[in-house]
Amino acid sequence: MSGKASYDDLLELASAILAKGYGYSASEAGITATLLVEADARGIPSHGVSRLAFYRANLDQGHARPGTEPVIAHETPVSVVVDGKGGVGCYVADFAVRKAVEKARASGVCHAAVRDSNHYGIAGYWAEMIAKEDMIGAAFTNTYIAGVPTFGNLRILGTNPIAVALPEAGGRIFLLDMATTTVTHGKVELYDRRKKPMPEGWVVDELGRVVTDATLFEKGFYESNLGGHLYLGGAGEESGGHKGYGLALLVELLCSGLSLGASSLNTYPKGGNGGITHFFSAARLDLFGEPAELKASVGAILASIRESSKAEGRDRIYIPGEKEAEAREESLRSGVFLDEATRGYLKKLAAEYGIGPVDWL
Amino acid sequence: MSGKASYDDLLELASAILAKGYGYSASEAGITATLLVEADARGIPSHGVSRLAFYRANLDQGHARPGTEPVIAHETPVSVVVDGKGGVGCYVADFAVRKAVEKARASGVCHAAVRDSNHYGIAGYWAEMIAKEDMIGAAFTNTYIAGVPTFGNLRILGTNPIAVALPEAGGRIFLLDMATTTVTHGKVELYDRRKKPMPEGWVVDELGRVVTDATLFEKGFYESNLGGHLYLGGAGEESGGHKGYGLALLVELLCSGLSLGASSLNTYPKGGNGGITHFFSAARLDLFGEPAELKASVGAILASIRESSKAEGRDRIYIPGEKEAEAREESLRSGVFLDEATRGYLKKLAAEYGIGPVDWL
Repeated sequence: MSGKASYDDLLELASAILAKGYGYSASEAGITATLLVEADARGIPSHGVSRLAFYRANLDQGHARPGTEPVIAHETPVSVVVDGKGGVGCYVADFAVRKAVEKARASGVCHAAVRDSNHYGIAGYWAEMIAKEDMIGAAFTNTYIAGVPTFGNLRILGTNPIAVALPEAGGRIFLLDMATTTVTHGKVELYDRRKKPMPEGWVVDELGRVVTDATLFEKGFYESNLGGHLYLGGAGEESGGHKGYGLALLVELLCSGLSLGASSLNTYPKGGNGGITHFFSAARLDLFGEPAELKASVGAILASIRESSKAEGRDRIYIPGEKEAEAREESLRSGVFLDEATRGYLKKLAAEYGIGPVDWL
Repeated sequence: MSGKASYDDLLELASAILAKGYGYSASEAGITATLLVEADARGIPSHGVSRLAFYRANLDQGHARPGTEPVIAHETPVSVVVDGKGGVGCYVADFAVRKAVEKARASGVCHAAVRDSNHYGIAGYWAEMIAKEDMIGAAFTNTYIAGVPTFGNLRILGTNPIAVALPEAGGRIFLLDMATTTVTHGKVELYDRRKKPMPEGWVVDELGRVVTDATLFEKGFYESNLGGHLYLGGAGEESGGHKGYGLALLVELLCSGLSLGASSLNTYPKGGNGGITHFFSAARLDLFGEPAELKASVGAILASIRESSKAEGRDRIYIPGEKEAEAREESLRSGVFLDEATRGYLKKLAAEYGIGPVDWL
């Protein structure tokens, strides 16, 4: 059955599975488990502990190499290029973000480009980690191919998310964390299961034609790299699909282009390192003046939006990141929701690796 | 009649109108005229010399103050905050971008936040100006209110464009320059004139409801600040409208929030300075390694997109900025296109300010 788990119990279990089952070091397991549980706690189950299956597959297929230490390939006082050497994505990202924060603390700013990493969980976590240091934080990553450029029909770019975080008054953090695709693949799978037609602008078929039948689309999706997700704005240029594709391509250039790493199309080669690339940026808030004054300025803009007049039938305007921050608070208070399939999968893993007893599952 | 003008003739005329007619200094006139003519040359007439009317109105209404020098309000080796003091927008932007490039040349990176400026023309020009220095360039700006947040009905944010430029192999520059609204207001005006229904996702009415009748929408648009443009992704969350709104809000926080300047809602107060705010960023390419190698890496990704498989009925996938770069080349070769209304307006201004004879108009 589905139900709630305590944040700490879930973190401990995920960490034990990664350490005992997957052969991650204690540090690799701890940081990866944190990313997974944070996603579930924030109401983003697509990046939660159910991803343990994906991380397992990455191990089995030789894409990720636990126990591998990232190295610095190039650095200046305001930049660092990290080579992840095919290590654990969250561990590599943590290394790069810490390095960026350390350099930004000394120099004011740091950009970090990362190559040969793996999936690093939710991008927003890393941007927020930087913002907690009273810095403006940004995190980008390419991913396995998911989307089709405007006027194309081949999946050649990833979901290529953009995450930017700014400290706000009252200890809050503004966090925009968005895939540049219109929707994630999980949404399409949901429409398939419910036999519900998708809105136009989500995906195109193998000829690059807009398609709304999720079941038909899903069938073709795994047969070839033709057809795939559209980027924000949908098909063609009329409603700005070329802008969303442009954002995805920008993310690709920052991550893969500047790190000299694999582009989305070349990630996860058969038997080779996943090759995922990231880009992070940190800039101290006091570069622009007194931090308290700047946070108040950011807060005043956000307050004006929160208090702005609502559309018919609506009683709230959300600030990016608010829903997730509130879900997280609720999860810490009353537990992290796990659906039945995920609970079952965790139970299976715990039994398989001799972890337990896990009586709360 | 409509027709083409030589780039240099048009630049000279626009500059003369600004200097002789509007009282701009030679520098203010030169840089502003360049921005306007560059927009026409690139096929972006909404930001071309027809904007002379808007710049005139800004003068008449006391929003812009020619002859005012921007000052540095705060600086570090990697940042600068510029106070435009209500000066000419393009002149203020030019000052801030030059300062950012100068600091980035010395320190590797520079972020510049600008307050109390005015309209600075096409954002892409500034990002590209930075990229020409073998740097990654970014330019953001807020604008007069244009758009409505997801679930809102009040125009409270601008078109808040994002422009990012990266040097590519072969001397080319990747340039993404996009309003975060789905479309610009010029598109809505065009549909109004043609009595053509707009696609859903462009605008909402005064109650925040999706509306497709451009004539009806235009009528209400000037009566109050209710109703307005939607951001990339359209209405609601189903097709990602909250992401586009999130991007617009991010631009607002970077520009207005970090410069301590006016938010879009507070720009152009009756009789006061326009108060537009900008944000620029420059980062030397060699922060990440050998520039030639990085440009080749960026170029290889772009080549893979250009050469990728095309959708049914399409024979080309565009890289952001390519259409505009090609239009510019064509304009330099065979002249800059001006429509009849714009030619007539230029003639009127030339006569009014005693400039001429302008026999090519």
